[in-house]
Amino acid sequence: LPVDVILVDARNYHTFQPLLYQVATAGLDGEDVCYPVRAIFGRQRNARIIMGEVVGGDLAARRIDLADGASLDYDELVLAPGAVTNSFGTPGVDRYAFGLKSLGDALRLRSHVLTCFERAEANPELIDGGMLTFVVAGGGPTGVELCGGLAELIDRPLRRDFSHLDVGKAKIILVEATDRLLRMLSPRSSESARSALGKRGVEVKLNAGVAEVGIDRVGLVDGTAIRSRTLVWAAGIKAHPLAASFGLETGRGGRVIVDDYLCVPGRPEVHAIGDLAASLSIDGSVIPQVAPVAIQGGKYTAWLIGERMQGRKPSPFRYRDKGTMATIGRHSAVAELPIGLKLGGAIGWAAWLLLHLIMLIGFRNRANVLVNWAWSYLTFDRASRIIIQRDETMTGTVVH
Amino acid sequence: LPVDVILVDARNYHTFQPLLYQVATAGLDGEDVCYPVRAIFGRQRNARIIMGEVVGGDLAARRIDLADGASLDYDELVLAPGAVTNSFGTPGVDRYAFGLKSLGDALRLRSHVLTCFERAEANPELIDGGMLTFVVAGGGPTGVELCGGLAELIDRPLRRDFSHLDVGKAKIILVEATDRLLRMLSPRSSESARSALGKRGVEVKLNAGVAEVGIDRVGLVDGTAIRSRTLVWAAGIKAHPLAASFGLETGRGGRVIVDDYLCVPGRPEVHAIGDLAASLSIDGSVIPQVAPVAIQGGKYTAWLIGERMQGRKPSPFRYRDKGTMATIGRHSAVAELPIGLKLGGAIGWAAWLLLHLIMLIGFRNRANVLVNWAWSYLTFDRASRIIIQRDETMTGTVVH
Repeated sequence: LPVDVILVDARNYHTFQPLLYQVATAGLDGEDVCYPVRAIFGRQRNARIIMGEVVGGDLAARRIDLADGASLDYDELVLAPGAVTNSFGTPGVDRYAFGLKSLGDALRLRSHVLTCFERAEANPELIDGGMLTFVVAGGGPTGVELCGGLAELIDRPLRRDFSHLDVGKAKIILVEATDRLLRMLSPRSSESARSALGKRGVEVKLNAGVAEVGIDRVGLVDGTAIRSRTLVWAAGIKAHPLAASFGLETGRGGRVIVDDYLCVPGRPEVHAIGDLAASLSIDGSVIPQVAPVAIQGGKYTAWLIGERMQGRKPSPFRYRDKGTMATIGRHSAVAELPIGLKLGGAIGWAAWLLLHLIMLIGFRNRANVLVNWAWSYLTFDRASRIIIQRDETMTGTVVH
Repeated sequence: LPVDVILVDARNYHTFQPLLYQVATAGLDGEDVCYPVRAIFGRQRNARIIMGEVVGGDLAARRIDLADGASLDYDELVLAPGAVTNSFGTPGVDRYAFGLKSLGDALRLRSHVLTCFERAEANPELIDGGMLTFVVAGGGPTGVELCGGLAELIDRPLRRDFSHLDVGKAKIILVEATDRLLRMLSPRSSESARSALGKRGVEVKLNAGVAEVGIDRVGLVDGTAIRSRTLVWAAGIKAHPLAASFGLETGRGGRVIVDDYLCVPGRPEVHAIGDLAASLSIDGSVIPQVAPVAIQGGKYTAWLIGERMQGRKPSPFRYRDKGTMATIGRHSAVAELPIGLKLGGAIGWAAWLLLHLIMLIGFRNRANVLVNWAWSYLTFDRASRIIIQRDETMTGTVVH
């Protein structure tokens, strides 16, 4: 088709978010889950890539504005900035909690966890103050997978690394506001995940919400508090604030209201896809903010634009549920397919492994991930235990 | 031997410095060239590791002080903090130049180079202002290998990534103060390195020194200036300032004066090894600051301490020259062995590859490096083209 595609992204790489928890728990290198955008589109002559931040624009004039002052005119606009962490206004979360939505989040959490162990070994009295107590808020896939990863990191590699420390004193606490983990799955899978985490030493608190977080404590809604230096916030996301800067109508969680064609009502040339959009399934319910929805939405919108250009009338977007899975750790995962098939234990884990390898973009990243995973599997080791410190990181965009 | 070993390091990982230039040119991930210190010593029960910074101490009282206020008493003290970049007071270097001594240096340089290309494609007028002119000061192994790596990065992967940009306008300029590159090698190898760089489009300026550097220019001692946003300083190192904080006698480049046993004169229990020490060869000349000297010095000092504990009189340190090598790029390296053997071209390159794979600590890092190198070799691609930005990096030690 005779189209020109301009991709604007604040980063020069794509982040494979489902595996960020493995970066945070030292199972993968940060660069294993990132892939340069230009490496994907480099050979496509009608694609242009701009590394820049969209700060707003004028939909009536069909123009978007970038942070560096440049503007771009468009015929069709596809908004796909994703979601950001949502603290729901919980006091202290923005200041003290760790997120897990970006490469930076994952590297920061990894450095923090490893530094906590360094501090605790140098001064074991800090353990009573919560130096080795890791609280994770949110029992969705991110929270469950992170707890499983933390348990495996601590149980073997850190137990061996910190032989002068009583690593058994480390605690992982998963706090979930509702009555079960992984609510998108069946109660049986929820219970199976909970039991698998329990076997790995993770304390699961159901019907428990975080009320506030301070520098060395996590306060729960029932009035109790946990002494901890670490709260990971996996309890909520909201749509990227970009929607608001365009003045688009948004629903719950800041998600852009779209019609059956994933277009903004009244503006068929403005498309919203992925975590940003409140797309509806056939029964009228809002589709969850998960990767398969975003992938299908992206493919649909590209097809839609092509169909319209050729004067055809495309059919509405229909989400096809491919199932859901979450891994707890070695030989343990839960998966449910829409045909009613439920996988657990080692079979679920093998399915999870295979799917994630296939999904990771690019041969080379896959090969690296395979090497890292094979190494971890055979040796129980996690090789990426690198603490990145302030003096080693960027002080800004370095072009001067 | 009944000894307790305490290793104090400000970082929790060992950096394989000879390959930092590959991280800077996107050939390897940052974590490929780093290895957690605890993974090396985890199984050794008489070894303790402290992540901390030594700020000084009292040699008479046999005590060292850490930045966090703790102190350590010792029977034997081994100082091995290495070297840092030496600007020789050249105006602007500390502020504007990039170093290549740490993981942070390498990641910063990589992000900078890639960002320069992003900027130039968005605004080609910036090219005349030096946005794509990369100046490297210093024609030693670091400078030569970096120029070769930059040339390969630009020639293939970036030429394909930035198809809307005239990548042919990019310039790499190597500035060397003396009359040849790689002075530790024979004039024939120097000339061979220069010719190999020339074939890759690197402009080599001999007998040319950097006089000063500004935000968008590099001034040379002959009064001319190069418009450039990038100066990499590979023109000098000096011993770590730790020597000064102990009040030790130092020689040229801040290196600690040591006796034939790598001990501080008058203090046989204080050892200085590696880039920190001005150790002498048999003919009385100072041994260069290269990795083999550091490795041999470390092994010697461990042996020396053991010998003395057992009441034996050890022999002095004797450095065994294992030869020198530098790689220019694909199928091109120069190597000279002390037996008089000179290797060049593809054979030198194969020798370089093999040696560096063997030297990299740890099976897992080696396997990853092998995957990355095989991928780069087969595809001419460089997969680590990730720009890490400020918001994605640490804002400090994250334990709060």
